[in-house]
Amino acid sequence: MLDTAFAQRLTEALGPEVVATAPDDVAPWLSDWRGLYKGHAQAVVRPRSTEQVAQALALCQQAAVPVVPRGGNTGLCGGAAPGNSPANVVISLDRMDKIRSIDTIANTMVAEAGCILGNLRRAAEENDRLFPLSLAAEDSCQIGGNLATNAGGVNVVRYGMTRELVLGVEAVLPNGEVFHGLRTLRKDNTGYDLKQLLIGSEGTLGIITAAALRLSPRADSRAVVLAAVESSKQALQLYSLLFARCGARLQAYEFFTGDCLDLVLTHAENVQAPFAERHPAYVLLEIADTASEDVLNALLESVIGDALEQGLCLDAAVSASLAQLQGLWRLREEISEAQRADGLHLKHDVSLPIESIPAFMASMEARLLARYPGIRPFIFGHFGDGNLHYNLSRPLGADPKWALGDGKAVSDEVMEEVARYNGSISAEHGIGQLKRDAFLALKDPLELRLMRAIKQVFDPSGIMNPGKLL
Amino acid sequence: MLDTAFAQRLTEALGPEVVATAPDDVAPWLSDWRGLYKGHAQAVVRPRSTEQVAQALALCQQAAVPVVPRGGNTGLCGGAAPGNSPANVVISLDRMDKIRSIDTIANTMVAEAGCILGNLRRAAEENDRLFPLSLAAEDSCQIGGNLATNAGGVNVVRYGMTRELVLGVEAVLPNGEVFHGLRTLRKDNTGYDLKQLLIGSEGTLGIITAAALRLSPRADSRAVVLAAVESSKQALQLYSLLFARCGARLQAYEFFTGDCLDLVLTHAENVQAPFAERHPAYVLLEIADTASEDVLNALLESVIGDALEQGLCLDAAVSASLAQLQGLWRLREEISEAQRADGLHLKHDVSLPIESIPAFMASMEARLLARYPGIRPFIFGHFGDGNLHYNLSRPLGADPKWALGDGKAVSDEVMEEVARYNGSISAEHGIGQLKRDAFLALKDPLELRLMRAIKQVFDPSGIMNPGKLL
Repeated sequence: MLDTAFAQRLTEALGPEVVATAPDDVAPWLSDWRGLYKGHAQAVVRPRSTEQVAQALALCQQAAVPVVPRGGNTGLCGGAAPGNSPANVVISLDRMDKIRSIDTIANTMVAEAGCILGNLRRAAEENDRLFPLSLAAEDSCQIGGNLATNAGGVNVVRYGMTRELVLGVEAVLPNGEVFHGLRTLRKDNTGYDLKQLLIGSEGTLGIITAAALRLSPRADSRAVVLAAVESSKQALQLYSLLFARCGARLQAYEFFTGDCLDLVLTHAENVQAPFAERHPAYVLLEIADTASEDVLNALLESVIGDALEQGLCLDAAVSASLAQLQGLWRLREEISEAQRADGLHLKHDVSLPIESIPAFMASMEARLLARYPGIRPFIFGHFGDGNLHYNLSRPLGADPKWALGDGKAVSDEVMEEVARYNGSISAEHGIGQLKRDAFLALKDPLELRLMRAIKQVFDPSGIMNPGKLL
Repeated sequence: MLDTAFAQRLTEALGPEVVATAPDDVAPWLSDWRGLYKGHAQAVVRPRSTEQVAQALALCQQAAVPVVPRGGNTGLCGGAAPGNSPANVVISLDRMDKIRSIDTIANTMVAEAGCILGNLRRAAEENDRLFPLSLAAEDSCQIGGNLATNAGGVNVVRYGMTRELVLGVEAVLPNGEVFHGLRTLRKDNTGYDLKQLLIGSEGTLGIITAAALRLSPRADSRAVVLAAVESSKQALQLYSLLFARCGARLQAYEFFTGDCLDLVLTHAENVQAPFAERHPAYVLLEIADTASEDVLNALLESVIGDALEQGLCLDAAVSASLAQLQGLWRLREEISEAQRADGLHLKHDVSLPIESIPAFMASMEARLLARYPGIRPFIFGHFGDGNLHYNLSRPLGADPKWALGDGKAVSDEVMEEVARYNGSISAEHGIGQLKRDAFLALKDPLELRLMRAIKQVFDPSGIMNPGKLL
């Protein structure tokens, strides 16, 4: 039975403006944005300060009440949606949205967890700096969620995952203690780097309330190339050339198949085929520099010239204006939407040792086609990081709800095959509820044991985001 | 009493070629290279494989025998020197020195812990890649030790600490279990990032036996500038300009005072004053690029021109040849040796929020001079990372052994002042034995409690490197 006195105590402690308990007020906080997961909660807490987060957590722990931390709710694995316990308390960080400081000497920004990523990017830009984390949901996701899931995105090939952009973290542990790790130091070799555990912990160890982030120089000279390639193998060889020649300028290296482009050209508006011919696959690459565009263009011309001469691509289109640059990017960005327009489908966010991608793509496709004739892979992703969004649509003519029936079995096959290549079943989306079974089945038992023991250190009463990750 | 049967069991299990127990054979392994720490050990184990490391650790844990992991023994904090227990077993990784793979498509190198850092750098270069970790001891330190201490060095401002160069780790836990984390994936969001605990743990959690390292493009176009500045404040402003204009090309930003240069000009051979005038301080900066030298030189000319025009430096010398580049670097690199020639002194490896450096330098010097009139600070370091080697020499005319007497009290003052500015008492050297007391006194009690609990998870019997760090 639910202890109704608890919600009352919580409200008394934090005030009715912070704690919502009426079913209508709680209802919008019970599911993920895609509507795949729907759970229960007795209350939603929306603190305005680290102290209020601490108060809420301390009360929850005392009463053994499960806590579901919530950022912008843009996750794809159900990590921020409550499970089935009616006792759940959702703690949303959305009201902690202050930028505490921006420093262009130290090149740091201290932001509260509820800050929208896009706002942080714009704030950095206004200060002539770059906060490089960039992903599709950037105008609704929150930086706290980005840290909790160690978000990736399109610029990882240059700037790394969220983890690599974080200098310090402030967090509240389940017992209400505040972890004061909000340091802006570039170097600090004093003991175990505890913040690394909180980053990527998906709300299972504590609640991140603020982060000290590393800013980069703005790299405003930009150019985009769309290269047609005959295979993922050729895309790899092209990558090797660009890596060596462009160095740190290479900030995106995206791959998609000809099938993906066909889908975009069918479903998206105002897009046009980039080449007269259809090609088996494409690479979209972006290079950017702090120096002038002339320098960049000269480099690009020379590198792409060499690539064509050495037979590392079939054809190439180089952006000559910002409009062209954005037009080329749209061919890549519209893939998800085009696949949605094509109908219900299965998404997989996997990574592989980059040199294994061609072999994986071949054996994965053979395995799936043997078992599910006509299944349609739409493969795209952050190729330079070895990260593929290996998405699958129903065979043409199959029941539009096919994915609901065969989906789990198909996904299990994908994840097994990924594991066979020593890949990761979650490159950048995390585990949440969606991949928990596969994670527990496929992860090394020693690592699972260590993770559970660490969970026990931070959260001995097990109240943090139960049913997610571990 | 020492259980002498243990050394015998160890020898029987691993063979006399791997286990040394004769006092003469053990003696060379009992102290750090500077001779500041000298301890005891009943045996030295030099395994040839991960399996042998596992066997040795399992036997040690069963017998509750303390283990001291050892790399190249170049550390400055006594982390690899055994303590006073006669039961200690030193496990040296020096024989595990194979490069298991180098991959120029994936841009990864898998190296065993005993590989000499300089050899890894050369192997990468032979494969047209860069392994960017670079530090004074690179031709004797081992990569396992670099990971265990999260080593820094001169290129951190561009490439980050060792932690940021590591994709995966293989390690043996104290009970002999092997942690198979040798992944080369760029992205892997499947649970807590456990390798981050092993990196920087100073041998207190387990023994790293191999690492998957990230390679960078070679950036062979290089230029060095020595800029004279009137103060550390001006050095900061100059840094801000260079950061914004040079972007990722900026790979070293070193600072030293006029006093440091005087010392070098007095004690080092074949060096010459870089400017006609003496200046209060200097910045040595290096920029490097994959593109041609022309591009680099044009950029540099423009940036340094602007710096002079905007009054961000007093004078500047730009290298026009490799010989000049090396000559400028020597002015910075010879500081340690010159200070040694000047006599016994105190070293401090600290870091500060970079914008606080001028205030710290002012208050620190006032505090020290008030208490120790005539004390001579020689301040240099990796300024772009906020990392100062805040070294102190005796007042002129004082007893040459002054550092032995007042040293501890002086160092305590330095570390207290650093803590007052939210700096770190160990930027890149770690804690080891040298800074353990200060670490335990100054670190946040919550962080210490979490670290001890994590230590308990990995090393419940407490055999790993006792007396170091925690």
